[in-house]
Amino acid sequence: MTFSLPPLDFRSDTVTRPDEVMRAAMASAEVGDNVLERDPTVAVLEERAAHVLGMPAALWVPSGTMANLIALSLHLQRGDRFLATRGAHVLVNELGSAAWLAGGMPDILEHDGGPGRPSPDALAAAIGHPGPYFTLRTSLLCLENTHNAAGGAVTPPDEHAQLLSVAKEAGLTVHLDGARLWQAAVALEVPPAALTVGVDTVSACFSKGLGAPVGSVVAGSAEFVERARRMRQMLGGGVRQGGVLAAACLVALDRIPELAESHENAQRLADGLREHGWPTNRPDTNIVLAEVPDIPTALAWLDSLGIRAVPMAGKIRFVTHRDLSAADVEEALRRLKTGS
Amino acid sequence: MTFSLPPLDFRSDTVTRPDEVMRAAMASAEVGDNVLERDPTVAVLEERAAHVLGMPAALWVPSGTMANLIALSLHLQRGDRFLATRGAHVLVNELGSAAWLAGGMPDILEHDGGPGRPSPDALAAAIGHPGPYFTLRTSLLCLENTHNAAGGAVTPPDEHAQLLSVAKEAGLTVHLDGARLWQAAVALEVPPAALTVGVDTVSACFSKGLGAPVGSVVAGSAEFVERARRMRQMLGGGVRQGGVLAAACLVALDRIPELAESHENAQRLADGLREHGWPTNRPDTNIVLAEVPDIPTALAWLDSLGIRAVPMAGKIRFVTHRDLSAADVEEALRRLKTGS
Amino acid sequence: MTFSLPPLDFRSDTVTRPDEVMRAAMASAEVGDNVLERDPTVAVLEERAAHVLGMPAALWVPSGTMANLIALSLHLQRGDRFLATRGAHVLVNELGSAAWLAGGMPDILEHDGGPGRPSPDALAAAIGHPGPYFTLRTSLLCLENTHNAAGGAVTPPDEHAQLLSVAKEAGLTVHLDGARLWQAAVALEVPPAALTVGVDTVSACFSKGLGAPVGSVVAGSAEFVERARRMRQMLGGGVRQGGVLAAACLVALDRIPELAESHENAQRLADGLREHGWPTNRPDTNIVLAEVPDIPTALAWLDSLGIRAVPMAGKIRFVTHRDLSAADVEEALRRLKTGS
Amino acid sequence: MTFSLPPLDFRSDTVTRPDEVMRAAMASAEVGDNVLERDPTVAVLEERAAHVLGMPAALWVPSGTMANLIALSLHLQRGDRFLATRGAHVLVNELGSAAWLAGGMPDILEHDGGPGRPSPDALAAAIGHPGPYFTLRTSLLCLENTHNAAGGAVTPPDEHAQLLSVAKEAGLTVHLDGARLWQAAVALEVPPAALTVGVDTVSACFSKGLGAPVGSVVAGSAEFVERARRMRQMLGGGVRQGGVLAAACLVALDRIPELAESHENAQRLADGLREHGWPTNRPDTNIVLAEVPDIPTALAWLDSLGIRAVPMAGKIRFVTHRDLSAADVEEALRRLKTGS
Repeated sequence: MTFSLPPLDFRSDTVTRPDEVMRAAMASAEVGDNVLERDPTVAVLEERAAHVLGMPAALWVPSGTMANLIALSLHLQRGDRFLATRGAHVLVNELGSAAWLAGGMPDILEHDGGPGRPSPDALAAAIGHPGPYFTLRTSLLCLENTHNAAGGAVTPPDEHAQLLSVAKEAGLTVHLDGARLWQAAVALEVPPAALTVGVDTVSACFSKGLGAPVGSVVAGSAEFVERARRMRQMLGGGVRQGGVLAAACLVALDRIPELAESHENAQRLADGLREHGWPTNRPDTNIVLAEVPDIPTALAWLDSLGIRAVPMAGKIRFVTHRDLSAADVEEALRRLKTGS
Repeated sequence: MTFSLPPLDFRSDTVTRPDEVMRAAMASAEVGDNVLERDPTVAVLEERAAHVLGMPAALWVPSGTMANLIALSLHLQRGDRFLATRGAHVLVNELGSAAWLAGGMPDILEHDGGPGRPSPDALAAAIGHPGPYFTLRTSLLCLENTHNAAGGAVTPPDEHAQLLSVAKEAGLTVHLDGARLWQAAVALEVPPAALTVGVDTVSACFSKGLGAPVGSVVAGSAEFVERARRMRQMLGGGVRQGGVLAAACLVALDRIPELAESHENAQRLADGLREHGWPTNRPDTNIVLAEVPDIPTALAWLDSLGIRAVPMAGKIRFVTHRDLSAADVEEALRRLKTGS
Repeated sequence: MTFSLPPLDFRSDTVTRPDEVMRAAMASAEVGDNVLERDPTVAVLEERAAHVLGMPAALWVPSGTMANLIALSLHLQRGDRFLATRGAHVLVNELGSAAWLAGGMPDILEHDGGPGRPSPDALAAAIGHPGPYFTLRTSLLCLENTHNAAGGAVTPPDEHAQLLSVAKEAGLTVHLDGARLWQAAVALEVPPAALTVGVDTVSACFSKGLGAPVGSVVAGSAEFVERARRMRQMLGGGVRQGGVLAAACLVALDRIPELAESHENAQRLADGLREHGWPTNRPDTNIVLAEVPDIPTALAWLDSLGIRAVPMAGKIRFVTHRDLSAADVEEALRRLKTGS
Repeated sequence: MTFSLPPLDFRSDTVTRPDEVMRAAMASAEVGDNVLERDPTVAVLEERAAHVLGMPAALWVPSGTMANLIALSLHLQRGDRFLATRGAHVLVNELGSAAWLAGGMPDILEHDGGPGRPSPDALAAAIGHPGPYFTLRTSLLCLENTHNAAGGAVTPPDEHAQLLSVAKEAGLTVHLDGARLWQAAVALEVPPAALTVGVDTVSACFSKGLGAPVGSVVAGSAEFVERARRMRQMLGGGVRQGGVLAAACLVALDRIPELAESHENAQRLADGLREHGWPTNRPDTNIVLAEVPDIPTALAWLDSLGIRAVPMAGKIRFVTHRDLSAADVEEALRRLKTGS
């Protein structure tokens, strides 16, 4: 790849690099062996994250995939059915580990309640009726807020509450994939904890948008977190001086309000893409999904312009983030317009 | 349960009892140890079943669930995505073992190609596009003919061929759940082998409609069957003198043409139920799904009339079979009409 | 294979064929759909088997492998360690399904307490000590009585009691693989229930020695059996008119006392083999393990004499059973002596 | 914990903290998104590690547990038997994930070839004979060098070669758990690659003894590493800017020769413990296992002296490492002697 143009990387908000502040925090972190005991910086992060998420306890893990995987493995008995929204990370991006490891049998909820969520009625219908004799046991609802495949769509607290009400009445456990819960909170101008009301467990990532190099948490009851700690060890997530990473996650936590800028940039980008003739969602947060006539052609052309994006769900996904400024967005739109 | 009325059992075509001919065949079957070597009667059945199904080889197993489970476990690598139609037996009636044991991640095809099958376009769309980086691997298509949850609907050979063409072009393995393939063959007036063209594996049951007490087969290449034999042992399906059961299955195989009667009975029953004010499918084979205002009320009322049926997929399912005569159907309709 | 000599099959006591009495019972069995409800003959068998085994409830399953597999799957949480004796059926003959399906991590107990069993001290030592941080959770002890790989050795009630005492003090669940528990009871002249004291679950087979073509039970608490019923369906063990098989199992249950004859025959056979220069165990029941200079050579020679046996654990196994009379044993020894 | 004495931490060589050099390397590491593409520093590490280990390719993972888990999951088919040495990390410290995730059925090799290894004859015997019909498939040998539970014992190249020869003749895949392979190489004064001759895969850790906070590799063929990359994603080991950690691992790689000091310290410690009346192994590397009359009493007493160690395999384990100097060892021995 020989760009004459400096690359503008819209592939994901995971591409952000730790800045000097974050690197300094990592370099000076107090650390311990997080398998033998709790690394002190990890412990601080876990407590702060639990508080911010409005949950009793939290466990640091190396990735959002592992956070979800631990939750599903602990919530599902062998063969249990779980409900998740079409395109959900647990269905698509974790390469089937929900089935292989957690033994769970997914069923898919369409987004009829709005982008990224089912309607309460559809949820109730999906939970289903007992069959003639043995019935598949539905035990878990997975929500995702913001919802990646729905273009970073947010589920507001009142709709969340309605879904929780249906799920809880049916006796389901509820796990919230909150990899980008921070973005939802900023868009809705509510604290993150306002979006976890009633859930049993929630995962959240520090490497998506917030700039931390590595790290996620899974949060729930203290008893859940104890079981999760053991499960993390089984899955190979038991790292030693995790404090070097947790230190960056702590810096990330302070930066939640700064996400607003990437949301504004996404709106500007979406406007520009539509002007360019590519229909898009109206982004709630930092993800723009553009419909193009032909994905490979469009991606190749973008690449020739130094604009990096990825195919997703039959569209092209652009993600704004802290390493792309408003000027970078304007530059991208300029290149699209001029073709050079 | 104190019926004044003799019970009429429409719950399933699995309730049929072996008759004298079948029992005599079982009583005189030549047998051997089917784990140490092949029981001679099992061997005869496996060869005949393979021939009838148009496959190179077949393996006797105790149930259709195990037949499907073996196929899925051998076709799927850990975490592989497989496609199955909404309400399919592998999704609903096997209690999640496809996920737990086979490690498979299902995705659901709607019945937009007709009852019990997707359209070729919907199938192509569901197979999907590669994602930005790691992509869930789609490796298997499961068809079901006839399709239970679609009211015993048949997929005719030409539509089967179109779906196979799409699947094979995408490199998918295809497993056909043919628990009631016999019924489809009879309804379409084709040999069963005409309905397995191009599939990698097929399962079929002798206890559904044909009256055998116990037994199914899973058929495929000789190499598949050797691997399936080992998998059957792992799952606990390695029985000893299976010939006593295979003898009944051999009698059942001769009775396929007799299924036509139960199909006529189903049509008569469906007509009568609609006259009664309960909308139904127009049954292709022996399954009638009736819409009722309230399922528990309707089931209780049926029960009071000595009519047994089961709830399924939000409706009530009636299945006709060889232990219910045309007169039995008329009697059931009479009871519905008179309420006694 | 062109024997001039009629074959004498010592490969296993599973090779026995159902006799006329058993076949007549099968042919006249009252049956029902054992998935939709309980087949009436299966129900009678399950109640009788539970009573004979001294357990609250029992579930019929197609094989001893499935009986053990259900017990292990319900007793073990993912990754739990279980203890079993070297050569145990759950370790060797079930092809790793204990790991694959039940997720269990075996550790092996040597037979230092006598053939087929550990000493109480070795068991206590194996249960082990907590490690420095996360410790593998040991949750299950599997015993086997009689013990196949130990040459059909019996564990008497007092030694059983000592092992149970150690296991229960450590909080372990105990499963007894009683595939040949009948043989142990006959050899010890106690009722089978005397050998299940304190265990949580026990499996037993009707196709080993007792002549039934197909069928085993797994027995335990009523709550265990309800969970086992669901697990049986998941594994593909849910058969329909199982009563045709259960009828044979009921006949088999009445024949337990007749096993004594095969035990006498085994002793005579062992004596003769030792006279022939092949050291053997002193059989407690119906299994003789002979040490031979070279297994393939010995098996080929036996085969040429029309004597069938199998290699096992570095020896050759001969099993006596109801289809081999005392005269058959003498004939086998005659052939060995004369080489023709 | 209110020590008057400064703590001396002998619990593990994982407790070492990154020093200033390592922290500086982390703070200045060039990074990228290691899921979307390869992080540049991770890529450098993977190439260097592969070279040092004498393997075609390597993959960075967050922990040694995940490294082993990926290897076992890729090497084992469902239910395959694998052989590992008593007390091996894959058997004991990974909490049964080898069974749960990889579906593997372990069998245990005693250390009759020397501490930490079987004899070639015992290995050959354990690989075993085919059984009468279906035989458990033995497909993998796991070695461990140095061997933790054997007191950090090294297996020299010639004995390694003999074991490999037996395993390869029997068609086994061989995985070497080289979490502390560096220590073995230093003790034997050979390059690490001399200890991986013939193996299919090897894991190695940068957080054991070498001071890196987080990180391991699993190495093998290029094709293996591609499959491992996908498996890492499934297990939740796909982290983003892993370069911050890989930078520390690169520093660690340069420090292998420095391990010699901890080996000398271990010998001095072992001598002192024996003088104290606690028998120990003669440490090959940095692990001392001491036999004490009563473990809880001994640990409590050590704790009162500010000496931290852990129970392991019925003994007390002391591990020397770069954060404990020769003077620290002398101080520990002084405290033991004086009891204060």
